[in-house]
Amino acid sequence: MGLVKVYVTYKESILDPQGEAIKSAIHGMGHTSINDVRMGKYFELNVDNNVSDIDSEINLICDDLLANPNMETYRYEILEDAE
Amino acid sequence: MGLVKVYVTYKESILDPQGEAIKSAIHGMGHTSINDVRMGKYFELNVDNNVSDIDSEINLICDDLLANPNMETYRYEILEDAE
Repeated sequence: MGLVKVYVTYKESILDPQGEAIKSAIHGMGHTSINDVRMGKYFELNVDNNVSDIDSEINLICDDLLANPNMETYRYEILEDAE
Repeated sequence: MGLVKVYVTYKESILDPQGEAIKSAIHGMGHTSINDVRMGKYFELNVDNNVSDIDSEINLICDDLLANPNMETYRYEILEDAE
């Protein structure tokens, strides 16, 4: 079994309203050393080991489902031998 | 400026309804080699370099704001010299 970690974030050019809201909440707690906050989605996918081309499979899943290509970008890490 | 990446996920014992919904959507797309999906939140925090104890600052922010201690766990990575 392989483990793939996927990180989906807004493109740099896109305003991140959640990140802005969290930043002001953090400042309200007194942590003024935090200059910027970006929020995104994080996925852990357990994948069969018998997948021939895992990169193309993950790219298809991300392009079609996990990330909105108009506003978001994604990157992923493939870790072997997850339990 | 330092960059801190925070990953917030449900505790193992907690049912992840979003993950289950995404898994069935992925299977519906024909990707049956995906056995399990866990979804979480991902944050990128830009932090001033003059923070004396960054670990305790990040732990406080995560405990008080970014993660629900009853249902979620978090981990973070501190990367130096973010732009």
